[in-house]
Amino acid sequence: MITRWGILGCGHISGDFVESLKLLSDGHKVVAIAGRCRERVNEFAQKHNLCDVNLYYDYDSLIDEEKADVLYVGTRNHTHFELVMRALDAGKAVLCEKPMGLSQDQVKAMIEKAKAKSLLLQEGFWSRFFPVYKDIRRLLDSNAIGEVKIIQADMGFPIMASTERLSKKEYGGGMAFDVGCYLVQFFVLVFGADAPIEDIVVNGWTSGPDNLDDSASITIMLEGNRMAQLLYSGSASLGARAQICGTKGRIDIPELFFCPNEYNLTVLPTNTFMKSVSKKVTHPPTTNADPKAFHFGFTHGLVYEAEGVRRALVEGNIECPEMTHNESLKVIELLDRIRQKIYG
Amino acid sequence: MITRWGILGCGHISGDFVESLKLLSDGHKVVAIAGRCRERVNEFAQKHNLCDVNLYYDYDSLIDEEKADVLYVGTRNHTHFELVMRALDAGKAVLCEKPMGLSQDQVKAMIEKAKAKSLLLQEGFWSRFFPVYKDIRRLLDSNAIGEVKIIQADMGFPIMASTERLSKKEYGGGMAFDVGCYLVQFFVLVFGADAPIEDIVVNGWTSGPDNLDDSASITIMLEGNRMAQLLYSGSASLGARAQICGTKGRIDIPELFFCPNEYNLTVLPTNTFMKSVSKKVTHPPTTNADPKAFHFGFTHGLVYEAEGVRRALVEGNIECPEMTHNESLKVIELLDRIRQKIYG
Repeated sequence: MITRWGILGCGHISGDFVESLKLLSDGHKVVAIAGRCRERVNEFAQKHNLCDVNLYYDYDSLIDEEKADVLYVGTRNHTHFELVMRALDAGKAVLCEKPMGLSQDQVKAMIEKAKAKSLLLQEGFWSRFFPVYKDIRRLLDSNAIGEVKIIQADMGFPIMASTERLSKKEYGGGMAFDVGCYLVQFFVLVFGADAPIEDIVVNGWTSGPDNLDDSASITIMLEGNRMAQLLYSGSASLGARAQICGTKGRIDIPELFFCPNEYNLTVLPTNTFMKSVSKKVTHPPTTNADPKAFHFGFTHGLVYEAEGVRRALVEGNIECPEMTHNESLKVIELLDRIRQKIYG
Repeated sequence: MITRWGILGCGHISGDFVESLKLLSDGHKVVAIAGRCRERVNEFAQKHNLCDVNLYYDYDSLIDEEKADVLYVGTRNHTHFELVMRALDAGKAVLCEKPMGLSQDQVKAMIEKAKAKSLLLQEGFWSRFFPVYKDIRRLLDSNAIGEVKIIQADMGFPIMASTERLSKKEYGGGMAFDVGCYLVQFFVLVFGADAPIEDIVVNGWTSGPDNLDDSASITIMLEGNRMAQLLYSGSASLGARAQICGTKGRIDIPELFFCPNEYNLTVLPTNTFMKSVSKKVTHPPTTNADPKAFHFGFTHGLVYEAEGVRRALVEGNIECPEMTHNESLKVIELLDRIRQKIYG
């Protein structure tokens, strides 16, 4: 059985997603593309050699496309809620780019509808589908670094001033939705969706014509003397690394932690902290990818996400174990709280 | 002219310091050692092959030792103030391990006395003397990464519970004095001693019988939408990395940022953030060091500090440009503020 994809939105991320699907051509096929601008849709189809697919110049037509098993929503943030709700109403499974919605209310409504309709609804946190993230879950489950006391992660690019969709409120802009969400999903990965949060402290600044969140330092305090320190920015270049710090060692995910090919496991000796044992584990990226075909330099890792969604569809699940509905709800709850603190 | 050193304290760091001096044997000579425990002093002299030096079993005798040009104070934190004041009174130049004092009042008094006596007084922030730190100063001065918006640094070892001097108030314990000070000097290095601070936010926890500061997440907000995010811990293993994040690029100092042999300079292109140019710069550690002679695995970098102090002495200066009195005052002021916030 081939998974037949319909693509909503003709931006860079949609382009990279269809290039990733080509790397999985035996199980996946793009059957339709939709965008609001006829020229962009045609250009998109040509650029990605998708001449045999149905092209639509409005989203509703693609949502009704009978050939498509699952819709990929790669449009701007502010459009996700309406498109996903319409897609679910039309009986379509959905993979929606993060952030799935702009508020807890939106995400709750989307998940409720998916459950009511028994349709797959998956937030596109592609990080979770990388082999490195799966290794990390296993390591944490096996207590490899003792009790996790602290996690730290950062991510930032000086792009807010120059990127319209990030600096405009009407497009669901602000850096929390764009990069902060990666930090928050990492927090939820390590400490769980039911983490006993004592306090969230946020300091940073807004920028641009709509005063949207630009940079933030976030400390999340947990019961039992544990905490997370997160940092994001839309006005400076950050290393995008993460570390999970335990009483007996550490897991480091080097640049770029949100789509990693490797990690380092450091295990402390019991006698002194000076002679740790470090092990670097590498998962080479998909080898047959042509980086030139991709807009972003690293997005062929979307193959892991596409395969995860296919697995869920084949097995008849409405969410992927890699990133569950419950986790999506926790991520948006935390993003709501963080954004409220920035906006005051 | 040979710089003749008197060593106060026979702990691990003093041992590594004298091993470093051996690597500089043409300009430096250890002439005396003092400790309060006769057995430890004798053991120390034997272990480090210092049979021809004067051994003292009280600090006053060494302070009065005429042969010594400069005293290295490597004793526990709580003894620094008294020993440094006595040494200056006796007309001796001093290199004192960090933290020089336990409060602003102490450090101010020490510096005032050094000035009054025209004697060198240097806080032992060895990091500052590494070639990597000197490169970083030059890069920042030359605007290599644009405007610095954010810095981030972390450092931690799960050692507080098992290390008496860290968990006891009477010894000047707590992790701010042990590792937090490295983060703070890094802040002062990048933003300067006159950085216009708007707010300091601290969250963390205390531990041990004396409830001393164990772990802390620190955000320092500066005028002009800039900030520092610092993280230290005495109960978890942290990577000890630092990054300086600018509008046009980034300087990364990998593990261990407080005694680094290398750094990475990333310069962003002007058109897109995806194709940065990264350059790794390595300063190999002193090659003739035998790591087995050192307690800590990396302390032969103390040679840079010893050479810096010798330069200042030869030139007749009372402070080193690598870490000035003004900077020492700023570090202790910030440590005071941070510790007050932790203790509430």
